[in-house]
Amino acid sequence: MQNKIDFRSDTVTIPTPEMIAAMMNAKVGDDVYGEDETVAALESKLSRLFNMEAGLFCPSGTMTNQIAIKCFTQPMDEVICDQTAHVYRYEGGGIAFHSGASVRLLNGPRGILNPEMISPEINEDNIHYPNSSLVVLENTVNKGGGACYTLEQIAPISELCKRKGLKLHLDGARIFNALVKTGDAAKDYGQYFDGISICLSKGLGAPVGSVLLGTKETIHKANKIRKAFGGGMRQAGFLAAAGIYALDHQVDRLAEDHLHAQLLADALIAADFVADVMPVETNIVIFKIAAHYTTASVLDSLTKNGILCGATGPDTLRFVTHLNTNADQIAEAVQLIKELKPVKRS
Amino acid sequence: MQNKIDFRSDTVTIPTPEMIAAMMNAKVGDDVYGEDETVAALESKLSRLFNMEAGLFCPSGTMTNQIAIKCFTQPMDEVICDQTAHVYRYEGGGIAFHSGASVRLLNGPRGILNPEMISPEINEDNIHYPNSSLVVLENTVNKGGGACYTLEQIAPISELCKRKGLKLHLDGARIFNALVKTGDAAKDYGQYFDGISICLSKGLGAPVGSVLLGTKETIHKANKIRKAFGGGMRQAGFLAAAGIYALDHQVDRLAEDHLHAQLLADALIAADFVADVMPVETNIVIFKIAAHYTTASVLDSLTKNGILCGATGPDTLRFVTHLNTNADQIAEAVQLIKELKPVKRS
Amino acid sequence: MQNKIDFRSDTVTIPTPEMIAAMMNAKVGDDVYGEDETVAALESKLSRLFNMEAGLFCPSGTMTNQIAIKCFTQPMDEVICDQTAHVYRYEGGGIAFHSGASVRLLNGPRGILNPEMISPEINEDNIHYPNSSLVVLENTVNKGGGACYTLEQIAPISELCKRKGLKLHLDGARIFNALVKTGDAAKDYGQYFDGISICLSKGLGAPVGSVLLGTKETIHKANKIRKAFGGGMRQAGFLAAAGIYALDHQVDRLAEDHLHAQLLADALIAADFVADVMPVETNIVIFKIAAHYTTASVLDSLTKNGILCGATGPDTLRFVTHLNTNADQIAEAVQLIKELKPVKRS
Amino acid sequence: MQNKIDFRSDTVTIPTPEMIAAMMNAKVGDDVYGEDETVAALESKLSRLFNMEAGLFCPSGTMTNQIAIKCFTQPMDEVICDQTAHVYRYEGGGIAFHSGASVRLLNGPRGILNPEMISPEINEDNIHYPNSSLVVLENTVNKGGGACYTLEQIAPISELCKRKGLKLHLDGARIFNALVKTGDAAKDYGQYFDGISICLSKGLGAPVGSVLLGTKETIHKANKIRKAFGGGMRQAGFLAAAGIYALDHQVDRLAEDHLHAQLLADALIAADFVADVMPVETNIVIFKIAAHYTTASVLDSLTKNGILCGATGPDTLRFVTHLNTNADQIAEAVQLIKELKPVKRS
Repeated sequence: MQNKIDFRSDTVTIPTPEMIAAMMNAKVGDDVYGEDETVAALESKLSRLFNMEAGLFCPSGTMTNQIAIKCFTQPMDEVICDQTAHVYRYEGGGIAFHSGASVRLLNGPRGILNPEMISPEINEDNIHYPNSSLVVLENTVNKGGGACYTLEQIAPISELCKRKGLKLHLDGARIFNALVKTGDAAKDYGQYFDGISICLSKGLGAPVGSVLLGTKETIHKANKIRKAFGGGMRQAGFLAAAGIYALDHQVDRLAEDHLHAQLLADALIAADFVADVMPVETNIVIFKIAAHYTTASVLDSLTKNGILCGATGPDTLRFVTHLNTNADQIAEAVQLIKELKPVKRS
Repeated sequence: MQNKIDFRSDTVTIPTPEMIAAMMNAKVGDDVYGEDETVAALESKLSRLFNMEAGLFCPSGTMTNQIAIKCFTQPMDEVICDQTAHVYRYEGGGIAFHSGASVRLLNGPRGILNPEMISPEINEDNIHYPNSSLVVLENTVNKGGGACYTLEQIAPISELCKRKGLKLHLDGARIFNALVKTGDAAKDYGQYFDGISICLSKGLGAPVGSVLLGTKETIHKANKIRKAFGGGMRQAGFLAAAGIYALDHQVDRLAEDHLHAQLLADALIAADFVADVMPVETNIVIFKIAAHYTTASVLDSLTKNGILCGATGPDTLRFVTHLNTNADQIAEAVQLIKELKPVKRS
Repeated sequence: MQNKIDFRSDTVTIPTPEMIAAMMNAKVGDDVYGEDETVAALESKLSRLFNMEAGLFCPSGTMTNQIAIKCFTQPMDEVICDQTAHVYRYEGGGIAFHSGASVRLLNGPRGILNPEMISPEINEDNIHYPNSSLVVLENTVNKGGGACYTLEQIAPISELCKRKGLKLHLDGARIFNALVKTGDAAKDYGQYFDGISICLSKGLGAPVGSVLLGTKETIHKANKIRKAFGGGMRQAGFLAAAGIYALDHQVDRLAEDHLHAQLLADALIAADFVADVMPVETNIVIFKIAAHYTTASVLDSLTKNGILCGATGPDTLRFVTHLNTNADQIAEAVQLIKELKPVKRS
Repeated sequence: MQNKIDFRSDTVTIPTPEMIAAMMNAKVGDDVYGEDETVAALESKLSRLFNMEAGLFCPSGTMTNQIAIKCFTQPMDEVICDQTAHVYRYEGGGIAFHSGASVRLLNGPRGILNPEMISPEINEDNIHYPNSSLVVLENTVNKGGGACYTLEQIAPISELCKRKGLKLHLDGARIFNALVKTGDAAKDYGQYFDGISICLSKGLGAPVGSVLLGTKETIHKANKIRKAFGGGMRQAGFLAAAGIYALDHQVDRLAEDHLHAQLLADALIAADFVADVMPVETNIVIFKIAAHYTTASVLDSLTKNGILCGATGPDTLRFVTHLNTNADQIAEAVQLIKELKPVKRS
């Protein structure tokens, strides 16, 4: 991938030498036996940070999300989420597969939900309907172009869920981007959610892993599910050490990724081949291809010029900025976008 | 329920004395051993009628639908259907529960789908996505106010499914209403579908049962699934006999139900408390309550006047005509609708 | 099947004219709406008889068992039962399929369990193990040759389950045979079990159906599961009426079936082609074929002489007596057994 | 854990500095995108070694096993394995939970199966029975005290499976111990199995991971299942590098573990508190506590003397030798065993 500027995802980052050194020096043990002190330190650090009781380190955000959904539902239950939600769209059909649960899909603007949308979708007790038991929010919303919830928006959703007896889970794959953007405090999150997934291998730049936060009881149950999923890893402290390093050193720099995303958006909005760019809030830029171009030709032209990105729909592309797209690369990409001449639709 | 006119559903019908006599005289055997000749006769009658290889008698349409979905999917697959589909909305979350399959929900006008809607929703082969393996159509569409597909509309959907390697199942809970309305021939259906569910206890007026049609191989598999579902019944011929009687004597009279539905719709459209009535195609009338009334007050007023019906949404009610709503009752209902004075919103 | 004596199962019985008359005069309604008064009467009759709070009529004993297992377990739980249990062996793998639950299999003498066998098989809380949540007993034990539990044997098992927090379900496919044999009272059963399945279409001679008994809360949940299974039937009162008739008129006569089974066993034990006969307690006779004969040749010889029965293992056959094997037929069968000359192993 | 001799499991090993160096110098990429070259190298190395087409790196042996079972079964299928099998006993009930599959449990001597045991347990096609679709072997057998299959024993089982249309999976958690012991060649394994799980974090001493081997088609399917399980890791090459290092440097030394296990067994057999020791074949020693001692008192006495081990049953303990139990420690443990004075049963 050298000489390329890789905007496909913030998952592609390679650890810095400092992070690798932190990994190398980690004290490890058998985490299936609960004896890896670095894993324990990471779990504890994040649960304290978000004011939750306990944490569980897992190989991926898909696993923390799917374990949470399994914890909070039973077969024949129904999960309420946005139609673009990662848990519904990009986790291999896991809600139905692992949990036997149905979905009720909402259509929030840029994937952002509110109580007025959710409330009428909670099923009454009737033998024909699944039991509505869980709402899942995503912050930031990937397919919403990195749109953020503020805690002010989250609070009334949480209140509705508590009142109606539903659980509330946060897919916080990019929660630190949201925190940096909104200025909300991590410690204020815990009160609103029954479960929070925090990914370490996206903007934070760690190589592998995600942590699920919840009550002690939830995490006890989650640990059992993790074992059945095959997510129990032995000397996992090497990976956890990278997560700790990322939390200590690579959170504030997310503001830079957001700035970079805005610079890319500004260039794109001016480009002939772009019809529209979703407002940039964090590190994601989703734009629509102009009618006289095809998505394929724009993608092809970008790739040939060393810019990697991905399609998020038939006529939309996504750029994600991250640790490995530095200021120089952004400048270069902006210039390339200005000069790009994709083949027009014939 | 005496003195009431029951428009809640066409499932509430009571067998006629002639149907009961047919049941009483049925030759029965142990159908789990494949020895009930009346069940076999019903399965054979319907499979020949729809030009399918084989049939399987089950206790309900929910079971025939859910068995079909199980036959045609594996866990981690995805079912494409309208968002109002009975299989998704009213079968207890069975798609996820029984089959571990996800749903991709479309929004067809009155629930009617076409290839242009379906095609972009078929997932490409990608580890993030469920495998699109089944399309389910409903004819008539219950929540679409009894809207019908014609075979002309079905053919290109079937063609798309065959080309893309998806199976196509028909929830034919009210397929005979569609046949009577469209004039399409039952025998032309078999070529387009991998599975067809036919309900005997709705418009046809039998007390219990539904038949799943498919290839011999599908029905062999379905029989095994039926056993695991607990749908294998012993001397089920008593029920099957009612189905045979209904097919022989109670199909043509569905036209009368359709006429009655239109009469009700005409009365409703003129009523002060009605904002809108969905076009009537068969035996279902769905209407929207006018803004200055509440659904509850209209429902209450109808009930007090002896008319039973049900809500299909926060501001919609549904009337279903059937064997036990005769011409006199329709006339009485029309008169009652004209005179109805629900309490207005204050 | 005329001229045959059918010992394959007590499921093959054909209703008497009196039972058919009771069916056809039943008052019926839409049971999915809870409006079939005959179904309600049957559920009520059985729940009072067994001193349980509520009942639910289903199309089969497989369904009542599988619904009970689903009610009392969650995925990743474990069910403890005998290795010969119907719920494990003959219900299509339903424990795993419907409930995602594992099995811990015991090896009770003739399938009869006791607390000493069960206790060590209850898993401790450990992430590697499924959660032991349910014990299932079968009374009478089909594969145990119709062996019975007495309430004296059941009480300490129930006590163990309560103490350890497990649920206890009774597969009472032939519970009335056990009651007739042991003299235990049905009303004393309710206190020991969380769920009881009672089959109407075996010894009781009704054509179709089984009733699940439990607390109101369990039956509320079971009703939802029944709907998803497709076990909700509309005018099911025709079938329920047969169950009521059977309970009123066909319970005491089970003693006759037991006597007939003993007569068959006596004849078999004397037969050259029989190595061993399991002790007869109720209406089932399981016998082992002598080494110098093959099971196939004995089965063939029986069939040719008009006696139908089934294999329960590589070298065992089973006779079941029932409503449609009267005293004359038993006498004829005894005579035939005496004279039978199956082909010897060459 | 310092100053302790840890015989609890070969999973507790800590990487050597050389292995850590190999990890930290690994070239990594985003393995979810298939771009981690170290992961690819490990998968390729193992698939070539075992003569299989392709491999898939996963976080644990539980995951490779459960993915394989999911690949080779459908819900309502049945898996045949020994009653002690890790896949059945220690994977959280995953066979039922993930795959909806039943189990048929055999009772092989020390967990070793043969075709004569398996053949009669393959179900015929009958609606009452699950479909027998998979046999799972474990080599070495953990609960069998590390007993090994030779390829000569495996070949006829494989032949039976092929003939009957069943798949054959190997849980090779300790396959290298078996190879070292039997002298069989890894390259001869591929022909016999549809799937092989190879664990890197047991005797091989890598910190995390397991590889599933199979055909390209199986691994394509497995990759999709891994994603849904949340087993897709991003820069997983750090872990894979440890696996490569282990394969290059830590296989031959397993012979030493086997020798050490024998030394421990010799000491145990002579001990007053030991009733019996299972024959030692590889790196596992399972012994039975003498009747006049309790398991708890022996365990307590061992622990107080710095020897950690675990119970495998109510009266059995297990020692596992590994990379971190060196010759000095074995000598020390042998001496401690000789001198151990657990409290006798009063």
